[in-house]
Amino acid sequence: MPLHRRPDPLAVQTLLEPNAVAVIGASGEPTRIGGRPVDYLKKSGFAGPIYPINPSRDVVQGLTAYASVRDTPECPELAIIAVPAKAVLDALTDCGERGVGAAIIFSAGFAEVGAEGAALQQQMLDIAARYGLRLLGPNCLGAMNISRGLIATFSSAVQSGLPQAGRIGFVTQSGAFGSHCFALARERGLGISRLVTTGNEADLDAADCLAYLAADADTDVIALHLEGCRDGERMKLALDAVQAAGKPVIVLKGGESDVGAAAAMSHTANLAGADAAYDALFRRYPVYRARSIREFIDIAHAAAQVKIPTGNRLGLITVSGGVGIIMADTAARFDLDLAPMPQAAQDELHAMWPPAATRNPVDTTAQPVADPDMPADFQRIMLRDGNYDVLINFLSMLPLAPELAAKLRPPLQTLKADYPDAVLMIAALCTPEAKQGFEDDGYLVYEDPTAAVETAAALTTLGRKIAESQPWKRTPESVTATLAAERRYSEYDSLQALDAAGIPCAQSHVATSAADAAAAAQQIGYPVVLKIASADILHKSDAGCVELALADAASVEAAYERIVGNAARQHPQADIDGVLVAQMISGGVEMALGVSVDPTFGPMVMAGLGGVFIEILEDVTFELAPFDKTQAKAMLERLRGYGLLTGARGRPVADVDALVATLVQLSVFAAANADVLDSIDINPLMVMTAGQGVVAADAVILTKDNNAMRESAK
Amino acid sequence: MPLHRRPDPLAVQTLLEPNAVAVIGASGEPTRIGGRPVDYLKKSGFAGPIYPINPSRDVVQGLTAYASVRDTPECPELAIIAVPAKAVLDALTDCGERGVGAAIIFSAGFAEVGAEGAALQQQMLDIAARYGLRLLGPNCLGAMNISRGLIATFSSAVQSGLPQAGRIGFVTQSGAFGSHCFALARERGLGISRLVTTGNEADLDAADCLAYLAADADTDVIALHLEGCRDGERMKLALDAVQAAGKPVIVLKGGESDVGAAAAMSHTANLAGADAAYDALFRRYPVYRARSIREFIDIAHAAAQVKIPTGNRLGLITVSGGVGIIMADTAARFDLDLAPMPQAAQDELHAMWPPAATRNPVDTTAQPVADPDMPADFQRIMLRDGNYDVLINFLSMLPLAPELAAKLRPPLQTLKADYPDAVLMIAALCTPEAKQGFEDDGYLVYEDPTAAVETAAALTTLGRKIAESQPWKRTPESVTATLAAERRYSEYDSLQALDAAGIPCAQSHVATSAADAAAAAQQIGYPVVLKIASADILHKSDAGCVELALADAASVEAAYERIVGNAARQHPQADIDGVLVAQMISGGVEMALGVSVDPTFGPMVMAGLGGVFIEILEDVTFELAPFDKTQAKAMLERLRGYGLLTGARGRPVADVDALVATLVQLSVFAAANADVLDSIDINPLMVMTAGQGVVAADAVILTKDNNAMRESAK
Repeated sequence: MPLHRRPDPLAVQTLLEPNAVAVIGASGEPTRIGGRPVDYLKKSGFAGPIYPINPSRDVVQGLTAYASVRDTPECPELAIIAVPAKAVLDALTDCGERGVGAAIIFSAGFAEVGAEGAALQQQMLDIAARYGLRLLGPNCLGAMNISRGLIATFSSAVQSGLPQAGRIGFVTQSGAFGSHCFALARERGLGISRLVTTGNEADLDAADCLAYLAADADTDVIALHLEGCRDGERMKLALDAVQAAGKPVIVLKGGESDVGAAAAMSHTANLAGADAAYDALFRRYPVYRARSIREFIDIAHAAAQVKIPTGNRLGLITVSGGVGIIMADTAARFDLDLAPMPQAAQDELHAMWPPAATRNPVDTTAQPVADPDMPADFQRIMLRDGNYDVLINFLSMLPLAPELAAKLRPPLQTLKADYPDAVLMIAALCTPEAKQGFEDDGYLVYEDPTAAVETAAALTTLGRKIAESQPWKRTPESVTATLAAERRYSEYDSLQALDAAGIPCAQSHVATSAADAAAAAQQIGYPVVLKIASADILHKSDAGCVELALADAASVEAAYERIVGNAARQHPQADIDGVLVAQMISGGVEMALGVSVDPTFGPMVMAGLGGVFIEILEDVTFELAPFDKTQAKAMLERLRGYGLLTGARGRPVADVDALVATLVQLSVFAAANADVLDSIDINPLMVMTAGQGVVAADAVILTKDNNAMRESAK
Repeated sequence: MPLHRRPDPLAVQTLLEPNAVAVIGASGEPTRIGGRPVDYLKKSGFAGPIYPINPSRDVVQGLTAYASVRDTPECPELAIIAVPAKAVLDALTDCGERGVGAAIIFSAGFAEVGAEGAALQQQMLDIAARYGLRLLGPNCLGAMNISRGLIATFSSAVQSGLPQAGRIGFVTQSGAFGSHCFALARERGLGISRLVTTGNEADLDAADCLAYLAADADTDVIALHLEGCRDGERMKLALDAVQAAGKPVIVLKGGESDVGAAAAMSHTANLAGADAAYDALFRRYPVYRARSIREFIDIAHAAAQVKIPTGNRLGLITVSGGVGIIMADTAARFDLDLAPMPQAAQDELHAMWPPAATRNPVDTTAQPVADPDMPADFQRIMLRDGNYDVLINFLSMLPLAPELAAKLRPPLQTLKADYPDAVLMIAALCTPEAKQGFEDDGYLVYEDPTAAVETAAALTTLGRKIAESQPWKRTPESVTATLAAERRYSEYDSLQALDAAGIPCAQSHVATSAADAAAAAQQIGYPVVLKIASADILHKSDAGCVELALADAASVEAAYERIVGNAARQHPQADIDGVLVAQMISGGVEMALGVSVDPTFGPMVMAGLGGVFIEILEDVTFELAPFDKTQAKAMLERLRGYGLLTGARGRPVADVDALVATLVQLSVFAAANADVLDSIDINPLMVMTAGQGVVAADAVILTKDNNAMRESAK
């Protein structure tokens, strides 16, 4: 739907950094939808001219008004369109004729209301394409460049004031959510650089905004609220840009539960992609996925305030041993490293205050009431000798007493100045003044100590991802087998195709006589398995059409005759290709691999352990294709039953290297055949002991056409 | 350690509801430790006389002072002791002679500082026992009866004011944590009835306080911060009383992680019991276990403000579809029932405002800005027709605008008056006045919508537990086998003992000749298993001392000879009882059952699925013994692999009823032999198909003495 395939940061730049703004449908009444942007732009200090467009007024809110955007003294790069849906097309044509670069369309009544609105939206796009005019919306709340005083919205949230200018760029698909973030940022003292609500995303979408924020010099941290995504590749390209810029993204994405997804479908015109695909997408990039608005805001704020740590060593210092324990429990839940202090440093702390606990959590007891230098003195030693990435200082209600807060602050201020890159947090009840003071000095301040630990965990996760994430090479170099769209792949064909793609498969042969079967078995090596080869017979075992562990030629020949006979009796109409003779694999750990194709993000590889793990526990993981060994290994490590592969409880160590290589090959094969593929199932894949490789014992490939045939046959 | 075995609510009553208070070590300086309680008691409106005790002053803070508690005009029921540790014994003797009922001992320097202090603490207890004087502390921050103005603490938190009187009773073992809760309650507007910090718990402990709060007419909700517990049965008895009173308990208990538990050990003199035992304990009672201070305070507050719901139907109504999706995701995570509105009611909502989403989440869009009656009008229909237990109304930043907040409130006020028992929550950014107004009207108000959903989940969990929890009958009637303390139980003995206790075991016999073995096999029925019977041979299979699936007499006789021969060769020193001939059980689902004995809470039964479930996934659950079928069933349902027993994926349905009965019998047997038992392992227990029962194939019972022998033999 967007006018360009690649995200277009320059179009968003035109929108957010215009020379001048026209407001089409401008009202003299500052509380009306067409009046608010004029009012806001005037008050917020936008530097360029504001041109109210209103054919029936000479002056709007004290500004010279124009009958049409064609009449303005200079051409505005941005037009805000606040007229009813039916008047939008004419307004856009005017903009196009005038040479306007971008338009924000507040008006509703387009794709979100059904087919008629969708047609109108398409006409809008056609006009935009004709003139090279880029669109935000329709049905959106607009956009803001807080750094430059461009408040191009009709959100009533602005009436209570603006958030301070800062380093967080917000992108939200929901206008209501955008307004909520705006108000929350203002109330919580967050600094915002940009805020864009994308509405129906007829043209510019969240991906364009991300690409813009990746390059934007005013933005360090990106906060993205996503309801859905139509073009996965655009989103990947945008995230590529963010990754290259080294900026973290905090994402809030609804619809992870079925009921949430159902609500999402009724809410927007968007296709809510399968949540597993989103999770896999976010895993590839320096993205932290928040699960609540509080977390979304807290983590974005924290990431913007501090140098994001690269390690996960957490030091805790408290005035209450009991709270230290609760914080330690939370830290353990998030795999933070509560490394103990070196003994010499512990001795030093002990000498300073013998009742203190000195290991980590360090407990000063309530002594800072009498000795307000102690929190800073202790933390100085913890930073010097403990090598912590993050320190959290629980001060209970001490900073509620203004005199004590005033005494606690100066040594903490000096400490932070001496360790500017350390992430220092205070968890305490504070007066607003005390909180502001600590924040001004560079501390992150929380009321709840658990929230501080959770934020520390999120920051270290982001830091690790920023440090480790690699550009996603979506067109791998390795040559791979290709699938034919119109072809129907039998089990034999599937095994052959996968084997050609570098996935080791059981040797097999489709025999058309008992003698042929015995000859094949001889060549493959005993024992073998025989199965009817027919796409028309689904439950082969039930039909007596599978025989296992055949150890000699006579058994194979007899089995061939029985299978063919059973097939003819039970499925007289079935189309029979012959009998598949296959190597019988035993030993090893059973895995199930698969590929499905997400409509938004393309092929996604699944890995799971076989048997009860997949059947009862649904212990499977996903990764978007293609990927390399790093992702493949991480997939396996996420499996709860991973120990089965690594020799847990005296089991043999399985050939994880071969499994990793096979997953990579499968992902490359899937990516190379994305347009043709419907799904792949490899079950079981036997993982032999280390050095012995893997073997796919059974596989089914469905191509899109093949699948369509199957569906139409139902 | 406490002076009485059973929790003693009356002793705590004396402490918290005294006629008069003496302050021993009273200071004229209101900021000193001995001065604060005098100051606080004067200011907080305590109704009875306050007697400062100070031999060198006639007047303390304007009150007549006395040289000794023996000199006061009447005998005070409570004495606060704020003198150094070495002066405490004399002060207590004075209290005892005077007939004081209870003493709060602020002083530190007792069991928490080592052996010398522990000895002093014991002397203190001896004096108390002599006079029937009850003690709180030592090393505690004291106690408060907010309802009656008794502020018997030296916590500096009181200097900034008191929380309002209300319905939550707090008990904390940590003084620092108690002060923090106190300050937090005041800042957050929570209503408190009592707050007790128990310090070293030389005499009165958290269990006494719970039992008191269970009976206390001023308390509806109990908030308990626990670091550890010395006497599990006392805690159970206290929770029995709370349960009988129908009051919910919110618990914050640190030490669930290993690192947290390690910190707990260094922090207090308490023995931190295994966390699984605490979890099992809390599960039995109407207890909600919070994981953060924020949750601890939020849930206690909510439970005190509303009628706790018994069902889990949650209705959501928002001004932002996107936020509705995020709330729905959270609700799904907590298994809340987002039941859709009936179609007729949806039609009614649609008629009122066609753009609304009407299913659940209901989305009014931003229309309440224009129509402030809409939130109440919509919720009225949701309550009337949707049968929701809890409604959460997300209003974004609407109540930040004072005029709009003033218009939203009256219809919501009327709604709540019409549905007084409904739990109604508002999630929104509010001015402090708007928040107070909604709260005054009976709404629970949250900034973060996810926090509101989490609170709804906690309340419905508590409501279900209050409705379902049954008195814990810890002395079951069913007669059961008893174990002998001094006896060493062989595998054969263990199977016999368990079989006698009602746990079906494989038939077995210890044969002492090949002929004897064959005769036993004949009686048991083929196939059988033969194993060497010797406590000295641990790895029987490795020593060639186990043979499986023996199907006839000749095989049994030959196996007997091989086993005896291998044993003699490989373990010439071993003491051999003979060869165990046992029924060979095949088919069925493998379980592992066990019993361990928690030092605090006694026998705890474990259940897990066998094989990879227990070995790789550690998929096991625990329950304190004894229990009945309800708990046994719930244990199984908590297993991730439960589907293996219930016929998942076409498996046969296993005999869950027999397994449940076996778990109950095991728990009864363990409870009856708690004093003697060290551990029981039953592995595997084969669960046959429905109606076919269960059979324990192997079992080991260790008694305490037996275990001691084994340990000393190492």
